[in-house]
Amino acid sequence: MIRAGLVGTTGYGARELVQLLLGHPGVELCAAVSSSAAGQPLGEVLPAFRKLSDLKLEEFDPARLAQSCDVVFVGVPEKAAMGMVAQLREAGARVIDIGPDFRLKDPAVYKTYYKEEHHAPALLEESVYGLVAQNRAALKDAQLVAVPGCYPISVLTPLLPLLDAPLGTVPVVINATSGISGAGRTPSEGFHFPEMNENYKAYKVAVHQHTPEMEQVLGHRLLLQFTPHVAPYTRGILSTIVIRPETLFDPAPYYARYENEPFIRVLGEGSLPEVKYVRSSTFCDFGWVRDARTGNLIIVSAIDNLVGGTAGMAVQCMNLMFGLDERQGLLRGGMAP
Amino acid sequence: MIRAGLVGTTGYGARELVQLLLGHPGVELCAAVSSSAAGQPLGEVLPAFRKLSDLKLEEFDPARLAQSCDVVFVGVPEKAAMGMVAQLREAGARVIDIGPDFRLKDPAVYKTYYKEEHHAPALLEESVYGLVAQNRAALKDAQLVAVPGCYPISVLTPLLPLLDAPLGTVPVVINATSGISGAGRTPSEGFHFPEMNENYKAYKVAVHQHTPEMEQVLGHRLLLQFTPHVAPYTRGILSTIVIRPETLFDPAPYYARYENEPFIRVLGEGSLPEVKYVRSSTFCDFGWVRDARTGNLIIVSAIDNLVGGTAGMAVQCMNLMFGLDERQGLLRGGMAP
Amino acid sequence: MIRAGLVGTTGYGARELVQLLLGHPGVELCAAVSSSAAGQPLGEVLPAFRKLSDLKLEEFDPARLAQSCDVVFVGVPEKAAMGMVAQLREAGARVIDIGPDFRLKDPAVYKTYYKEEHHAPALLEESVYGLVAQNRAALKDAQLVAVPGCYPISVLTPLLPLLDAPLGTVPVVINATSGISGAGRTPSEGFHFPEMNENYKAYKVAVHQHTPEMEQVLGHRLLLQFTPHVAPYTRGILSTIVIRPETLFDPAPYYARYENEPFIRVLGEGSLPEVKYVRSSTFCDFGWVRDARTGNLIIVSAIDNLVGGTAGMAVQCMNLMFGLDERQGLLRGGMAP
Amino acid sequence: MIRAGLVGTTGYGARELVQLLLGHPGVELCAAVSSSAAGQPLGEVLPAFRKLSDLKLEEFDPARLAQSCDVVFVGVPEKAAMGMVAQLREAGARVIDIGPDFRLKDPAVYKTYYKEEHHAPALLEESVYGLVAQNRAALKDAQLVAVPGCYPISVLTPLLPLLDAPLGTVPVVINATSGISGAGRTPSEGFHFPEMNENYKAYKVAVHQHTPEMEQVLGHRLLLQFTPHVAPYTRGILSTIVIRPETLFDPAPYYARYENEPFIRVLGEGSLPEVKYVRSSTFCDFGWVRDARTGNLIIVSAIDNLVGGTAGMAVQCMNLMFGLDERQGLLRGGMAP
Repeated sequence: MIRAGLVGTTGYGARELVQLLLGHPGVELCAAVSSSAAGQPLGEVLPAFRKLSDLKLEEFDPARLAQSCDVVFVGVPEKAAMGMVAQLREAGARVIDIGPDFRLKDPAVYKTYYKEEHHAPALLEESVYGLVAQNRAALKDAQLVAVPGCYPISVLTPLLPLLDAPLGTVPVVINATSGISGAGRTPSEGFHFPEMNENYKAYKVAVHQHTPEMEQVLGHRLLLQFTPHVAPYTRGILSTIVIRPETLFDPAPYYARYENEPFIRVLGEGSLPEVKYVRSSTFCDFGWVRDARTGNLIIVSAIDNLVGGTAGMAVQCMNLMFGLDERQGLLRGGMAP
Repeated sequence: MIRAGLVGTTGYGARELVQLLLGHPGVELCAAVSSSAAGQPLGEVLPAFRKLSDLKLEEFDPARLAQSCDVVFVGVPEKAAMGMVAQLREAGARVIDIGPDFRLKDPAVYKTYYKEEHHAPALLEESVYGLVAQNRAALKDAQLVAVPGCYPISVLTPLLPLLDAPLGTVPVVINATSGISGAGRTPSEGFHFPEMNENYKAYKVAVHQHTPEMEQVLGHRLLLQFTPHVAPYTRGILSTIVIRPETLFDPAPYYARYENEPFIRVLGEGSLPEVKYVRSSTFCDFGWVRDARTGNLIIVSAIDNLVGGTAGMAVQCMNLMFGLDERQGLLRGGMAP
Repeated sequence: MIRAGLVGTTGYGARELVQLLLGHPGVELCAAVSSSAAGQPLGEVLPAFRKLSDLKLEEFDPARLAQSCDVVFVGVPEKAAMGMVAQLREAGARVIDIGPDFRLKDPAVYKTYYKEEHHAPALLEESVYGLVAQNRAALKDAQLVAVPGCYPISVLTPLLPLLDAPLGTVPVVINATSGISGAGRTPSEGFHFPEMNENYKAYKVAVHQHTPEMEQVLGHRLLLQFTPHVAPYTRGILSTIVIRPETLFDPAPYYARYENEPFIRVLGEGSLPEVKYVRSSTFCDFGWVRDARTGNLIIVSAIDNLVGGTAGMAVQCMNLMFGLDERQGLLRGGMAP
Repeated sequence: MIRAGLVGTTGYGARELVQLLLGHPGVELCAAVSSSAAGQPLGEVLPAFRKLSDLKLEEFDPARLAQSCDVVFVGVPEKAAMGMVAQLREAGARVIDIGPDFRLKDPAVYKTYYKEEHHAPALLEESVYGLVAQNRAALKDAQLVAVPGCYPISVLTPLLPLLDAPLGTVPVVINATSGISGAGRTPSEGFHFPEMNENYKAYKVAVHQHTPEMEQVLGHRLLLQFTPHVAPYTRGILSTIVIRPETLFDPAPYYARYENEPFIRVLGEGSLPEVKYVRSSTFCDFGWVRDARTGNLIIVSAIDNLVGGTAGMAVQCMNLMFGLDERQGLLRGGMAP
């Protein structure tokens, strides 16, 4: 049994880790840290898990965590994670951070988009970007994993294999729509139920922090016009990617490498994903249309932002790091309905 | 490995069985029957399960199912199930029917509420009502299990232990609200998205077919005024039960028997459940308030109608029937958010 | 043209008043007060009304309002309204308060349910309860109107005419479900979109402040067991009222008085309302079922909590107070879809 | 009073016309035609309008309608409208068709996208495209108005004024998201509540029939890559338009012409619309962002697809045709919440 610890238990990504780790046949959730609720039983703080765990939430103690856990998941908010991860690494823990603090390799870019100096730049090189299909080999020995952002997972999964295709030089136009859980658990007027229900809007147009993350992973070979939106549902991201290639090529051969990927489902030409078929699962589904009239290639992909986009990908990384079957604990299809 | 078959694969309760059985560590889903989609791969008919199963849907062949499966779940619509269950039983299969055809013991009552003659009344006596907390012993050897209705599970779980309390003679008033998945998968004007979204309504007032089911299980010792409603969400039932007792007793001691129930969470006085904390789980949560002003006891309970109210309860029955840990394959908390 | 002022502009009930007053052919909205946004244009604070009004929000100045307005609507939160209404009345303004501060006649009851001493008890006698069908005559000359609570409107409309019927002595059981706008505009964790979406729950069981309001209007001739719930939609209340009468009488004759009510629609026996048919309208729809099996009468009623339950009723009161056609400015059916 | 008739009463666009026409101070709704419900009272077929109208639905009789009505709105489905409009025009009626049959000027394009021969091509020239800001003069004397499609209104309103700007030659990428009411009233599996709730998807990628409509109105000077999506809400369209201009110009001056448009609200640079602020109103709101990093201009616009996108625009056309104040009957802000 792998002993897994969790730092930051009450955020949405972390809750989903609790869900997956409690149900994982090869894992024991042995510690759950919460600064705001230390001392309380997990089941009181997260009533969804009553009768499933006897854990008590505890204070952050990096040395104790490093000693008692084989791996520590970090699910605290951005910026707060930096220091905690550094302490955990110093204490010798293998760490999987589901936040953004160790994704960008350039501290200057981090500062531009997150409005804060990076406090642990020395760890940026060590950090392995946890996009399994891209970094499977490196992940096996990783000591620090930065789980990709939810939007990037939905975009990079279909885009990365196309880097060798004639993509042209026109910026790729990506419109993505996320469920509201992506905005986190802290209440705000914009996401108060009566304000967001029956609403739809774009946000952070031209300035979203996942843009540099995606461009970095794509080796800066593509310029992305990324426009995120929110719709009145809780979970899931659908990304619509419009590419203006030099010539309208067939993307199917580029995706042959995904045939054995356990959680990537290439739907093919003319077959488009829906959020419901990936909800609560680790899958990324995508398909595409070639528009002969305009010469464009349109790719549509879907993930569950909290599972395939965060916690499920994190557990898949952990399975890899510890030599387990990658699919263990993740054998769940989309929740439809 | 228990070999499980499934008859009727595309309805909402059956889909949920596919979800649970594919993820169950002690079960192999070895056959899935669908009259409408026989011959097609499961993953094409239910895209949520692509890459999780290689099964092909097949025609209904009771002899073959009885031979190749240790247990057969039946998830076809009411009335259609009667004949199929009879054939499966005749062929020697152990059967778990998630529909209503074998719940009512009196064929005359069945006819009154389901508007059709019962075609297999001989099996009504054999059938064991699959409410685990009530019938654990009988379920172990059951050859035919009738999984309770979703509303009854939410109502009977808190009501049954109170039968020895001074409940009085005034009919118990039960108002329940269900998500729309309870209405099944067939489109209709009333549940067309724009008609049901932002809507709320009562239905089948005074004539809902779960009323006689509940009164039967309660030994006809209580008269129930049951009013079901639907609200614009997909999953979950919340039942608000108002009892006018002879004297306002403390229900807590009556629920001591539930302490070790794996999927019943007694929240206690003043602590009320919410649908979100049981969503996609097998749990039934309930709490209560004693109103000294009126002399009434108000109990509120919550389940996920498709899991705790159908498929999860069915799998718990199966675990019992085959001597597995009751919780196997069901270690999932509520999906919140 | 009636010159109407509004104190408290940004809450949900007040916004709805802005909507109705801007579209009312006999009214000029001549002042809008907001302590939090004084000095800003109405259309910037409430972007829904850009290009419909040139008003600037202003500070509360009772003397000026009394002088420049024929009527002042007060839409500030409970407790805050008391003092402002008193000042407005002192300055000579006719006032329509959409909050609860002047509904209860007994200051002791107010204190019990609102946890604060009533600061203007002298006005409680003057205040006319703005339930039009009940108090039409008194409303014509009212100087201070207390618009009823949303739940009370949905419950009292069908219950009041039955006071002469053989209702018996068993407490009437009322289960009501409201859209989330009823909880107001201030964000909170419970009504954060991901927490409330796909959720359903009861709240304030046995202690909701609308219980004494309803019992007062019913002349304390009925004891009410009122259990409010919230469902994941924005607008609308549906109340299910279960009466255990001495004998199961026919309610239809009691409702003959409603035939000419412009905004009450008696649907009759077996015909039940839905929230969608009253959404964004001033209507209260209700119907009923007599259950011969249990001897109970079940009434179901529906309103839009912000219009028929607040702002529409307030405007109907205003129309009455100023001798206009009661329906003016309110000729809007339910918004379906 | 303008006497208005309505052909096709029960579809979503038509219902909204009933709503607007019943509340319009200068209009009498004098006839409502429904082939499926002829003979029934309007209030029984559309319960939202009970007590607001005594009309009985009637059979389609073009001569009678032409005689008794000053204008006839046609709200029947595409293809069915062609013949009826032709008969109405022949009988001398002024007609406002809210469907697509008279929008495209080229019958061959109609056939390509609607899969049917156009039956009344002679009327295509007479037909005036009812985009008020574009065709105000022509609409005043129009005998036949084709109300634009909902997506086109949201796209053309911000795009048309830019035709003289240096837009470049790269196809404009438009991603739009609509509420489900846009799919009409007929139930289908895809829009069954449990299937569409918590779902999000793209549809008709590269082949949507509004593409040629928009390109026609833009004088074929722009190639559009239009990708429509549906989200789980009932009303509203948000369109995100990405333009790759030759040089990144300032669009503000091009929009000066909209300053006095009653229902177009230019929010300006960095100020983006939300669906909630236009819901149930005739407004089109839009704003934009210039991305210096990519050189692109991103415009975001919002309408209510049934009002600003259909019925409200139709009534604005009618007001123009009969010399009324354009805003009459439409003085309603967005319904937020």
